[in-house]
Amino acid sequence: MKIVIVGLGVIGGSFAMALKEAGYREVYGIDTNAQTLQKAREMGIIREGQTVGDRLLRDADLVILAIYPQLMRSFIQNHLQHLKPGCVITDATGIKGMFIEDILAMLPEEIDFVFGHPMAGREKKGIDFASHQVFKGANYLITPTKKNKEKNIELIEGLAYEMGFKKVRRITPSFHDEMIGFTSQLPHAIAVALINSDEEGRDTGSFIGDSYRELTRIANINEDLWSELFLGNKDNLLKAINNFELELDLIKKAIHDYDIETLKQYFRKSTKRREGLDS
Amino acid sequence: MKIVIVGLGVIGGSFAMALKEAGYREVYGIDTNAQTLQKAREMGIIREGQTVGDRLLRDADLVILAIYPQLMRSFIQNHLQHLKPGCVITDATGIKGMFIEDILAMLPEEIDFVFGHPMAGREKKGIDFASHQVFKGANYLITPTKKNKEKNIELIEGLAYEMGFKKVRRITPSFHDEMIGFTSQLPHAIAVALINSDEEGRDTGSFIGDSYRELTRIANINEDLWSELFLGNKDNLLKAINNFELELDLIKKAIHDYDIETLKQYFRKSTKRREGLDS
Repeated sequence: MKIVIVGLGVIGGSFAMALKEAGYREVYGIDTNAQTLQKAREMGIIREGQTVGDRLLRDADLVILAIYPQLMRSFIQNHLQHLKPGCVITDATGIKGMFIEDILAMLPEEIDFVFGHPMAGREKKGIDFASHQVFKGANYLITPTKKNKEKNIELIEGLAYEMGFKKVRRITPSFHDEMIGFTSQLPHAIAVALINSDEEGRDTGSFIGDSYRELTRIANINEDLWSELFLGNKDNLLKAINNFELELDLIKKAIHDYDIETLKQYFRKSTKRREGLDS
Repeated sequence: MKIVIVGLGVIGGSFAMALKEAGYREVYGIDTNAQTLQKAREMGIIREGQTVGDRLLRDADLVILAIYPQLMRSFIQNHLQHLKPGCVITDATGIKGMFIEDILAMLPEEIDFVFGHPMAGREKKGIDFASHQVFKGANYLITPTKKNKEKNIELIEGLAYEMGFKKVRRITPSFHDEMIGFTSQLPHAIAVALINSDEEGRDTGSFIGDSYRELTRIANINEDLWSELFLGNKDNLLKAINNFELELDLIKKAIHDYDIETLKQYFRKSTKRREGLDS
C-alpha cells in the first residue's frame, strides 16, 4: 500500500513516524516547504517528498490529509484529477461539518473519503515537534458517510490501532462536532481566557501551582489553526461556552450566598464525573 | 530542633516526608486519627504521634499546622497554654486573610507565627497520598506580619528550600489572597464548572484528548477543604471569576462576529503570556 501524507507538520509528521513504527515502508510526503520534506527524509519517515506532488498522488492507495481545515476543500478541488481511482482518502481535521458535504459532492464514486480525527496533538507546530508517542493510548474518531465502503472504514480503523490509538469510535459528523466543541474547543477557549484575564505586572509565575500550569498549557496555541477550528464550529462552541458559563454562574452564586452545602454538592458531582472519566 | 506537625493528611504527611529527607530526625505528629499516626510511624516519618498532643506541643520548637482553614483559630485558642515560649508556628493554609488578625491577637509576644503556603498538593486526601516529590521545584509563599522576627521568617524560608521548594517569596497576606484567588481557586472553579457543564449520557470519555483531561483533573476535589477555601476568600475569588468571564465573553463575541483577526490577537496574547510563565 502506497501512502501519501499531505502536510508534514506536527500531525502529518507524527502520522509518518507512527506508520514507520507500524512497519509501513511505502510512505511519501507532500508539503509546500522543501526543508520540511528534507527533514522528513533525513528522519527516514518518508521515502520521497514533493512540494507539488501530483505525481505522488497518482500512485497513492491511501492519501492522508494533515492540513488546515480551510484548505480541505481547495486541496480536493485542485487535485481531483491526480487522485487514483479506487484510492482512499482520510484526514486529521478537528472539525467536520464545515467541509464534508462539499467534498463529498466533488468526489467521484470510485474515490472514498473516510473522515477521521486522531484526538492527539501538541501545541507546537511543525515537523520538529512531531511524535508518534502522542498517539499511544489516545482516542480516534471516524465519521462515516453514506458513500463510505465498509472495507475502507475498516482500513482506517485498523491503521489507527496499528499506530497506537487505544479506542476508535464511529460517530456522525454532527455529533462529532458537538462533542469536540465541548471537549476540545471549549477547554482551549477557557485556557486562553484564564491567562488573558490575569492583570499585568503581578509576577504571576511566583504564585502558581500545578493547577494554573495545567489549565493554561494549551493557552500556548497555534492561532491560525485554532481560529479556523473555532469559527468552523461556531454554533457548537458558542453553545458549549454558554453551558459552561451557566455552571460557573451557579458556583458564583453559591459563593456569593455563602452556601457551603450547595458548593459541596457541585464538588461531589465534579469529583464523581472526573473519577468516572478514566474508568 | 523538635518539630511537631499537626494534621498528618496529604500535606502534613508530605511535610514529614520532606523533613525526613532533609535530615530532620526529631519530627513528631498530632492527628485525631490513630491509624494515621500508626501509618506515619511505620513509614518512619515521625518518631512519635499523639491524638491529643498537649505533651508534644510543650516541647516543640517548631509547630507546623497542616489543618483545615476553619480549624486554625480554634486550634490556637485551645492549645495556647501548651505552646512553648519562644516557639515558632507556621501553617500550610491556602488562604490567609480569614484568620491572621484573630490569631495574632490571641498569641503572646514570645510565640511567633510565620504564616506560609506551600504551593503544592494533590487532589486526594490522607497520608496515603502524601509525597514530598510534589514539593520539588514548587513555589512557597510567606506572608510576614509586623510581629514576626526576621530570624524566624528565615527559619521557615530555609526549611522550604531544604524541603525542595524552588522559589520562596514574601508577600502581604492581602496580596497573597488576591493572587491565590486567581491562580488557584479560579482554576478549581473552572475545572468543576467545565465537567459539570457536560450533558449526561454522551460517553464523553471517548471524545477527549489531553486538553480535557488536564483541564478537569482538579475537578476531582476535596469538597470540605475547597468549600472552605472558596468561601474564606469570597471577594477575591468572585473578582477573579468575573474578570475571567469578561475575557471569555470577548472570545465569545469574536466567534459570534466571525472576527478571525480579533481571535488571533487573543491567541497571540495568551501564547506570549504562557511562554513567559515558565521562563
